[in-house]
Amino acid sequence: MIESSDQAVTLTSPTALPKAGSFLWNRRMLLQITARGYAQAQAMWPDPVKFATGPAWEGKTFMQPEQNYYAHHPGRFFYLQDRDRDALCSLPYEPVRASFASFRFRAETDRVQWQLGWKGLELNLSVQLPEDDPVELWQLTLHNPGNETRRLKLVPYIPLGYRSWMAQSAQFDETLNGVLSEATAPYQRLQDYPDSQAQPVYRYLLADQAPSSWSGCRVAFEGEGGLHNPDALRQAQLDNQPARYDEPLATMQFEPVLPPGGRVTLRFAIGMAKQRDEIETLRQRYLMTPEGFEQAQAGLRNYLSPGKGRVQAQSPDPELDRFSNLWLPRQIHYHVALNRMTGDPQTRNYLQDWIGANTLTGGADPQVLINALSQQHASGEMPDGIRLHEQAQLQYINQVPHTDHGIWLPLALKAYLDESNDYALLDQDCPFADGSHATVAEHLDRAMQYHLAQRDERGLCYIQQGDWCDPMNMVGHKGKGVSGWLTLALAYALRQWAEILAAWPQPARAEHYQHLADQLNQVANAQLWDGHWYARGINDEGHAFGVASNHEGRIYLNPQSWALLSGAPDPHQAQRLLASVDEQLGTPYGVQMLAPAYTGMNEGIGRLTQKYPGTGENGSIYNHAAMFWVYALYQQRMGDQAFSRLRELLPGTEPETAQRHGQLPLFLPNYYRGAFSQYPDSAGRSSGLFQTGTAAWYGRILMEQLYGLRGERQGLRIDPQLPSHWPEARVTRDFRGAIIEVHYRRDPHCEAMRVCYLGQALQDNLLQAIQPGSHYPLEVVLPEAG
Amino acid sequence: MIESSDQAVTLTSPTALPKAGSFLWNRRMLLQITARGYAQAQAMWPDPVKFATGPAWEGKTFMQPEQNYYAHHPGRFFYLQDRDRDALCSLPYEPVRASFASFRFRAETDRVQWQLGWKGLELNLSVQLPEDDPVELWQLTLHNPGNETRRLKLVPYIPLGYRSWMAQSAQFDETLNGVLSEATAPYQRLQDYPDSQAQPVYRYLLADQAPSSWSGCRVAFEGEGGLHNPDALRQAQLDNQPARYDEPLATMQFEPVLPPGGRVTLRFAIGMAKQRDEIETLRQRYLMTPEGFEQAQAGLRNYLSPGKGRVQAQSPDPELDRFSNLWLPRQIHYHVALNRMTGDPQTRNYLQDWIGANTLTGGADPQVLINALSQQHASGEMPDGIRLHEQAQLQYINQVPHTDHGIWLPLALKAYLDESNDYALLDQDCPFADGSHATVAEHLDRAMQYHLAQRDERGLCYIQQGDWCDPMNMVGHKGKGVSGWLTLALAYALRQWAEILAAWPQPARAEHYQHLADQLNQVANAQLWDGHWYARGINDEGHAFGVASNHEGRIYLNPQSWALLSGAPDPHQAQRLLASVDEQLGTPYGVQMLAPAYTGMNEGIGRLTQKYPGTGENGSIYNHAAMFWVYALYQQRMGDQAFSRLRELLPGTEPETAQRHGQLPLFLPNYYRGAFSQYPDSAGRSSGLFQTGTAAWYGRILMEQLYGLRGERQGLRIDPQLPSHWPEARVTRDFRGAIIEVHYRRDPHCEAMRVCYLGQALQDNLLQAIQPGSHYPLEVVLPEAG
Repeated sequence: MIESSDQAVTLTSPTALPKAGSFLWNRRMLLQITARGYAQAQAMWPDPVKFATGPAWEGKTFMQPEQNYYAHHPGRFFYLQDRDRDALCSLPYEPVRASFASFRFRAETDRVQWQLGWKGLELNLSVQLPEDDPVELWQLTLHNPGNETRRLKLVPYIPLGYRSWMAQSAQFDETLNGVLSEATAPYQRLQDYPDSQAQPVYRYLLADQAPSSWSGCRVAFEGEGGLHNPDALRQAQLDNQPARYDEPLATMQFEPVLPPGGRVTLRFAIGMAKQRDEIETLRQRYLMTPEGFEQAQAGLRNYLSPGKGRVQAQSPDPELDRFSNLWLPRQIHYHVALNRMTGDPQTRNYLQDWIGANTLTGGADPQVLINALSQQHASGEMPDGIRLHEQAQLQYINQVPHTDHGIWLPLALKAYLDESNDYALLDQDCPFADGSHATVAEHLDRAMQYHLAQRDERGLCYIQQGDWCDPMNMVGHKGKGVSGWLTLALAYALRQWAEILAAWPQPARAEHYQHLADQLNQVANAQLWDGHWYARGINDEGHAFGVASNHEGRIYLNPQSWALLSGAPDPHQAQRLLASVDEQLGTPYGVQMLAPAYTGMNEGIGRLTQKYPGTGENGSIYNHAAMFWVYALYQQRMGDQAFSRLRELLPGTEPETAQRHGQLPLFLPNYYRGAFSQYPDSAGRSSGLFQTGTAAWYGRILMEQLYGLRGERQGLRIDPQLPSHWPEARVTRDFRGAIIEVHYRRDPHCEAMRVCYLGQALQDNLLQAIQPGSHYPLEVVLPEAG
Repeated sequence: MIESSDQAVTLTSPTALPKAGSFLWNRRMLLQITARGYAQAQAMWPDPVKFATGPAWEGKTFMQPEQNYYAHHPGRFFYLQDRDRDALCSLPYEPVRASFASFRFRAETDRVQWQLGWKGLELNLSVQLPEDDPVELWQLTLHNPGNETRRLKLVPYIPLGYRSWMAQSAQFDETLNGVLSEATAPYQRLQDYPDSQAQPVYRYLLADQAPSSWSGCRVAFEGEGGLHNPDALRQAQLDNQPARYDEPLATMQFEPVLPPGGRVTLRFAIGMAKQRDEIETLRQRYLMTPEGFEQAQAGLRNYLSPGKGRVQAQSPDPELDRFSNLWLPRQIHYHVALNRMTGDPQTRNYLQDWIGANTLTGGADPQVLINALSQQHASGEMPDGIRLHEQAQLQYINQVPHTDHGIWLPLALKAYLDESNDYALLDQDCPFADGSHATVAEHLDRAMQYHLAQRDERGLCYIQQGDWCDPMNMVGHKGKGVSGWLTLALAYALRQWAEILAAWPQPARAEHYQHLADQLNQVANAQLWDGHWYARGINDEGHAFGVASNHEGRIYLNPQSWALLSGAPDPHQAQRLLASVDEQLGTPYGVQMLAPAYTGMNEGIGRLTQKYPGTGENGSIYNHAAMFWVYALYQQRMGDQAFSRLRELLPGTEPETAQRHGQLPLFLPNYYRGAFSQYPDSAGRSSGLFQTGTAAWYGRILMEQLYGLRGERQGLRIDPQLPSHWPEARVTRDFRGAIIEVHYRRDPHCEAMRVCYLGQALQDNLLQAIQPGSHYPLEVVLPEAG
């Protein structure tokens, strides 16, 4: 059902995983497409604009978990009829849902293709994107390996949905050789007019050859037959009728004739534009030039090239390798390159995605940190979102006051410095939002001081309307509630900042922050320790939650992970919380974020408790949180347990796991359904959403913890924690311009790890004085697991 | 295809008018349903809440013109399978679209029913509403007139759509004997939480008998078969599976067995609720009581009874009679009773709907005027919308400053006083928005003075971001642009106010306002007369529009109508503008609001010009405006021309007209497509929207102008303008508690109209000293048309 290679993941059934698909992006746009042909394209304009919607007026909203598909969902469909037989299918599968003799949906990093067999024909359909333009490039090759001439009718069908109640239309444009749809962005208030004018008014489907007929009107095309058997295909030709305020559509008819052994290729461009001229330009560039598609692909590959992983591994786990060598860096790169398709990413996302950039060959751009810090208030407070351009519309979520954003600064900076050694950045001058200036280090100091000040009389951090956990909006909205996690996270952030300062080196300042971190840990132990684990918080009414006396939400994962990171628990406490997490949060599909999931509103916690049990933050296997846990386990040097938790989050390739997950192993989803004790049947189901902090942390953990190739001020620290059942592994690691080649192997005679460079044992397992452009083969000999 | 009787309109084909349907409402809710079964239900909660949406996240928006339907559109579907034959259909038609031996969709004023013949069975499906509750009551009777026992499977299928990305579910509830769906209203900002809590979380489908199985999950039900042939119906039983964050659905299976001659009836309740208890109450009330449906119907009839027309006519035009005696008052009553399903109707709509109330037996409630005036600013300015309850959300459209709202006060008051003679209302004390007080008359004075003050140095009225014409938002947003229509409308409003004052009587004050009106008319003639008609306005840049030198929007209807009403034109001007309107705005389907329709944005006019040519305000046959024109023609005593314009707006019953209009003759739509010279093929197509000021004016014109039975201070003025081809007519007219029975007839010997009461000629054709409860038979003898 799923075939995985080093270049591609292939799904051989259109029905086994009905929501599975892939996504492609370039500098401007994102295309999500299922193996069955439902699709959603968006381009930054400069905020995201959808290519099409359904036939009703759709809300402007973020990507939806477990997206619903339905007959009239936007998609890319190619009806194919055999004119001499009474046979109709549609490529890739929807909406006719005909049986194919063979079906192969093949996701590559820069292309999606389908190889289909139907009625003796061999069909190859593919889509790719160019580097810069908001246009999809489709190619369909029809091959007749048989002995009879085949007279076909091919009708690409691109539904555009209900575009506007103001004005919408679609008609054939002779010059462009395609169907062009125009629509007026609806608005009512005069102040919304300029925004409406910035929108791309055009949608189009162009072809590289002239159609015999076309249509612009959905209802007329479909008729009484329905989308699975449209009336228009029972006529010799399409109706050549425009949509005039009707629901628009882009469709054209072609009539390829394939002699025995014959082959024909058609190319199409699908996209959006503000000016008609832009379309003409793109047509010339891609459709009218024989090498247009090839150049586009080369351009895209060039654009994607900084998104390769710094680590390429060959381990005893080829599935893990295929994912982590190819797809994981791709997912991380998507975040880094497109900022989650938003003009104002949440600050914590922006900074954590930047952590991910360190795992890519392209590296992390220090300007990201500068962008974020230049929107910091002089008080030290970080804003909820970082505006990437002046017109960026403030998302709703960034209108909710969350209290954690500054926490991520030292973590992100530490990851960057470990990789780059760019300590000069700390001295760089950077403005605050009010125009005043300070060094980056001073920005960090103020952020830490701001967080330290935002604490109650017990020393616990106020939570206001949420911390890392967005929908925890009623814990502290009255000004008193505190976050257990945030208190521990602040302790960890202070430790990270102290470590940066120590390495800079600024030892006295480092010690000061380390001391503050220790104090916070004491506070946490005094106020949050519940006997077997740490509480998630104490709300405005003084009720602790995430504690054993709760019936729902008794235990939350994050406070335990971050307590291990901050160093709060003593060994006895650590043992207890480790056991509690395994026992209460562990499932066969991953570790849950909390349990039991809430089944009804708790007005002392908020929106979180209104989410469906086992979805999102309400007790799903929320992979971002699971990553913190894995990271903490590695910090505890519990390599086997950590690996097991890491590994179980990988989307499955075996039929049973794949069907449970419902997605292909191309990305880590933001969650798998949890609430395992309550709803075991749906547990493990993927959200299908690939925007998640999970990816960055997964990449970082593989590089720095599993393979233990972590940068330090002086060089590269070799400190692997391979799972004990791995006898061997090989890794190539790009580091500060050099190539490090590591061969790990276990040796029954080895008692403690040895790292050898050119036959010499490395002192302290630290590779120093690394020369850019050089090549460092390392032998890492490990003891057998005991 | 369409059969029309005094009780019902029947459509005998499911495919001839694919969007045609009917609507039902009660005190709380509105149900729109097509003959094919697509449906949209909304209830006031206290702002409108939809029962269901499509499978994507839909925008919260007003009713859409020319609504698109598609496979997964919300609807009410009843799959019916013959278990001994391989036969499947769905009632009433969607989504299977099977052939019926007979199909009759019958719209009654308080019920919708379908009479269907299928495979030898007689099927009767109906829906009605109770008086107060937001619930639909469905009944299905299956009758087997044949000689064989029929074993059937009946599966009512109610799609609920994508209800929430927070939480959604659906499952069978044993106690309620139905499928119950729960969902959390999504929100992100804490301040939106209370609103979200006020929402009805439940949707349900209940039955009066136990199902054999059920399902709550759409995707599983549908499977690969699609909605037209769902997988679930190929199994012996439904899956009994709940939706758990899946797209919810309400469906149950029943297995009626009909012996020869047998008959079975099933009853269902479909609705929404905030508390589960409410559902139990409704179940007891309607499903568990044998007479529940009958009592509901009686209740609804009682609720609808004030919505009968004051005029019942028998004319030579039975189609007009059927419409105006039954459906027109019903449409007017809908507006009066539900305020267009909004919590803050636009002020002009609220006042004009109140004009309509005068044509209903229930009469116009003076409290409506008081409500409006109590939100008037002390300056005399009226707000853009009248909030009907404290939580009412201000609609976008009411955030746009429009300048016409006060104009409607004297017009609405005049209509009310003519009918009620309630002149005491003028002395009633009424607050302003700031809490200060004044009499109603003083409120009117201040409104007129406010409008008089809002004029430029030429004496023309500023338009700001629109007047009656909402989307004319760029004519005067910079503060200079003026409205030609509004200037003339103010003159007419002043005249109306003067007439009220003269009748009160306050002759000096009346003369003052009459004088001001005359002055305005002079201004209009000096500034707006364009040689053959009046200009629509002059924008911020000083450019006149609606003038002969324009290529698009050369002539607008409204300034011409209101000039005739205000008395601005001299006879020569009147003749010219009458000819211009006929020539440039007339079409076979009605008179257009402007021509030629704009084909692109004009930033000196605004949003209007961005609408699709021939739709809405951009040159459609906008019936509200057409009514002003008809009213003006009657004022000009051009009865034949007026009648012809009135009559052509009636939705057609002949196949050709009906197919062009695309709706049933149950309501006047807000527009028919215009742009006749540009797009003749689509001209005449109905918007399908029944919320429109058209209805009130149509009713008033019939009563006061066509039949000429108009109230005055002293009694009832008889002043008909029957079309010259009518030899005779009979009308019953409810007036101030008395019943007036009028028999009009033409007599070749008559030279001037005579009105006789009990054989005596009425002086001045005025019936005076009318006694409530009395009965006045009148004979109106008219000359033959010359």
